[in-house]
Amino acid sequence: MDFHLYDTTLRDGTQQEGLVLTVGNKLEVARALDTFGVSFIEGGWPGAIPKDTEFFRRARHELKLRKAELVAFGATRRPDLAVHEDPQVAALLAAETSVVTLVAKADARHVNLALRTTETENLAMIRDTVRHLTREGRRVFLDAEHFFDGYRTSRGYALRVVEVAAEAGAEVVVLCDTNGGTLPDELGDILTVTATTGVRLGIHCHDDSGCAVANTLLAVDAGATHVQVTAHGYGERCGNANLFTVAANLALKKRIPVVSQDSLSEMSAVAQTIADITAAQPVRAAPYVGVAAFTHKAGLHTSAVRVDPSLYQHIDPEAVGNSMRTLISDMAGRAAIELKAKELGYDVASTSEVVSRVALRVKDMERLGYAFETAPASFELLLLDELGIKRPFEMDSWRMTISGGRVDASVRLEVEGGHGLGAGLGFTPIAALDQALRGALAPSHPDIVEWRLVSCQCWSLDGSLGKPAATRAVVTVTDGQRRVSTVGVDDDAVTASWLALQDAISLVLLTREPIAG
Amino acid sequence: MDFHLYDTTLRDGTQQEGLVLTVGNKLEVARALDTFGVSFIEGGWPGAIPKDTEFFRRARHELKLRKAELVAFGATRRPDLAVHEDPQVAALLAAETSVVTLVAKADARHVNLALRTTETENLAMIRDTVRHLTREGRRVFLDAEHFFDGYRTSRGYALRVVEVAAEAGAEVVVLCDTNGGTLPDELGDILTVTATTGVRLGIHCHDDSGCAVANTLLAVDAGATHVQVTAHGYGERCGNANLFTVAANLALKKRIPVVSQDSLSEMSAVAQTIADITAAQPVRAAPYVGVAAFTHKAGLHTSAVRVDPSLYQHIDPEAVGNSMRTLISDMAGRAAIELKAKELGYDVASTSEVVSRVALRVKDMERLGYAFETAPASFELLLLDELGIKRPFEMDSWRMTISGGRVDASVRLEVEGGHGLGAGLGFTPIAALDQALRGALAPSHPDIVEWRLVSCQCWSLDGSLGKPAATRAVVTVTDGQRRVSTVGVDDDAVTASWLALQDAISLVLLTREPIAG
Repeated sequence: MDFHLYDTTLRDGTQQEGLVLTVGNKLEVARALDTFGVSFIEGGWPGAIPKDTEFFRRARHELKLRKAELVAFGATRRPDLAVHEDPQVAALLAAETSVVTLVAKADARHVNLALRTTETENLAMIRDTVRHLTREGRRVFLDAEHFFDGYRTSRGYALRVVEVAAEAGAEVVVLCDTNGGTLPDELGDILTVTATTGVRLGIHCHDDSGCAVANTLLAVDAGATHVQVTAHGYGERCGNANLFTVAANLALKKRIPVVSQDSLSEMSAVAQTIADITAAQPVRAAPYVGVAAFTHKAGLHTSAVRVDPSLYQHIDPEAVGNSMRTLISDMAGRAAIELKAKELGYDVASTSEVVSRVALRVKDMERLGYAFETAPASFELLLLDELGIKRPFEMDSWRMTISGGRVDASVRLEVEGGHGLGAGLGFTPIAALDQALRGALAPSHPDIVEWRLVSCQCWSLDGSLGKPAATRAVVTVTDGQRRVSTVGVDDDAVTASWLALQDAISLVLLTREPIAG
Repeated sequence: MDFHLYDTTLRDGTQQEGLVLTVGNKLEVARALDTFGVSFIEGGWPGAIPKDTEFFRRARHELKLRKAELVAFGATRRPDLAVHEDPQVAALLAAETSVVTLVAKADARHVNLALRTTETENLAMIRDTVRHLTREGRRVFLDAEHFFDGYRTSRGYALRVVEVAAEAGAEVVVLCDTNGGTLPDELGDILTVTATTGVRLGIHCHDDSGCAVANTLLAVDAGATHVQVTAHGYGERCGNANLFTVAANLALKKRIPVVSQDSLSEMSAVAQTIADITAAQPVRAAPYVGVAAFTHKAGLHTSAVRVDPSLYQHIDPEAVGNSMRTLISDMAGRAAIELKAKELGYDVASTSEVVSRVALRVKDMERLGYAFETAPASFELLLLDELGIKRPFEMDSWRMTISGGRVDASVRLEVEGGHGLGAGLGFTPIAALDQALRGALAPSHPDIVEWRLVSCQCWSLDGSLGKPAATRAVVTVTDGQRRVSTVGVDDDAVTASWLALQDAISLVLLTREPIAG
């Protein structure tokens, strides 16, 4: 089936607060979207936004797309101006894309208040611009902006916009719930009526009512064969329909092959790549691709997934390149500890004494403010301790000085066969300590200088723990292969994060080669 | 209408990764939910989780609920055990709530694999437990776990569970999409059939397909009169249907008065209160209550909302206690700057030269890496500079030393009529500098010692800005009344955040009394 998975991350997605992409960033995102397998990539609005004009110029030389078509976005001609005299329309042609998507008002109220023209002139603007672009050899899609609001206020006019666009040569007319206020029942009803026009319909939803994904699916149920989405649901206000959620729902549940099975199995990695480029923190609970999407905490669920993971998972996580995780918390019993140990690669079923000691220490440490569910590596280190595995180093002493905003740190360690000394320089205490610690370990582990402190987060713990000023710190480090998170608790944030950091580095060192579990 | 808005934040919501609530936290959340006006608050699972047993014990004395009923959650009796001998059922009664919600398997596969009992025994467990609790004077709701999966695999059995529960005396049977995998079309179809049983139905949705809110609404369309939700959609994996989104959709769009108009207009504040208690960062793009829910960035949208905000907003933000914001970015023209200035309370329409200078400086500073959309207070300070308003202090000199993980900072300022000196101690450079700066300003502004540094976030900027190691820092401070965010850019993170902090404190000082704009 000719079904369009149409991505507008680079245009509508960049309306999200805090999302500021360079032209280089936009090219990188386009490559990731193409690799994933979307059909169309809307790159921006040439002529209106200088950065977007530059994007299309560079894209012509630098962007070799495997499958996707690049699309330029723009508006219908200005009121009372001949289409060939409109510089904005000329800029759309100058972008040299094979497809152009035009936005046009489908709500009479907007025509009057925002465009400040007549309903008749608005239809002429649509007709002229679509015809002009198709004559110039472009495929044209038309975004019927505010279609659903327009349908409510003046149904006949909204439908007329759809028909005029199609008659003029628009290949698809995209019904836009621009303000995101339409609920599923109403959207389904409106789609059903609009489908009787016989025009090929698309759908573009916003999430202001929390229904963007569902509305997109319901539009497909009603006959739409073109869906507009953005990576991670980026977009203005509450965002747009989420590319990843929509693609997986369509492919896995509605059996519409919008992307290949292989692409789908890389989806979580694609999502992470795009989040790395945009520097917007991905939502942990995001459907399909979120870190927590297949994470189990409840005791009953944990024991059931041990029998059969499908009992508490709607799909196999591997189908979208994600994986199942279970969490250790103060509710963890022996079964959860055995399961988590197994997940980490240790078979402790036969050493029931170890399991008992670990369970006891988990409960004790959780009471002090540790939270193992946020730091699985701390649990693994605790397990190794109880299995009698010796730590790779012991801390002898450490100190820091600061001047001019820069922190100097030095550490002295006991390591196998002697001492290790290291010094570090950073803008924060933990960055300087990290460098110093890795310096001290470098003689015996040369590649450790390449490891990286990914993040350090702190929480204040409330007074009920008996330590009014206590802080919980979770530190994440990577050796380039994997990320390891550990937790530390202490009266002050620097010591808490420093303890966590030492544990994280210890764990990576201990688990680089297989350990007898 | 007797419609149940049933909140399970304290039970199902706490299955979310990283959500670790003390009993004190749980009591606070219950108070916030009651103030908001939910009908039922599910408090936890007494007997199974020690913290929850303690919660119900303390709730009896410490929790005076205005409107909501507290609910204890638990399971049907164990297989092959008389109901009055089951300690888990006894613990439910011991919680002394007027309502008990029982979870029961509605999927034959789960009965066999997870419960390891027969389908007949499962029905007996439901019948016995519901009868036992109703005889003891409890109102009973029954969560039909995995109902939708069960309907797919063995429709007759799933429906039988619904009927048996109702016959035994359950007031509501709640259809649970426990794994969150059901799409709207299928859910609607199943609800329509199930409604023919004549049993009062509830709905409990998870967001694994991104459809939890829509599915909840579609169930209501099909006749459900009891909706289970959690604050912020907290919950295991991808979370549950979001209380705030569902409540606003039902009240404002479906005209079902689940909470009063007054409560609704406090909803954004309630959402913030609960996020403060759980310490889980609220999603900025969350429908209705998110900081970004009514935020406009696109140039065309910004000029349209100047004409009529309803052109790009699905509801009036004040109806849910939120407000409209517009963003200043490198795309901001004179119109956007005038609008943003007006939003901040300055009428600059008549001083076109100021607007031009501000527009120029915004573009210049954005090129250096500043991002005004994340720091509206920096824009306001820039505006004040161009309006000729003098800063409240100038930095003379500052220094820091660190030892044992503690940072000492000292600053010397020029202030009106002389110098200010201050010293500070903290665990991070910015915390120490913050204290030192406020100390230096305290003689002229005594209440400044109560102000607080809320957060400090840093981003590395890419090489395209010509400064390979540059950092953008955004700092937020509060004087107890409002939060103010400013941005700083420099080669190192400490200086970037220190510049932003000075600006934030300057702005609060400058704008405490009305300024002639």
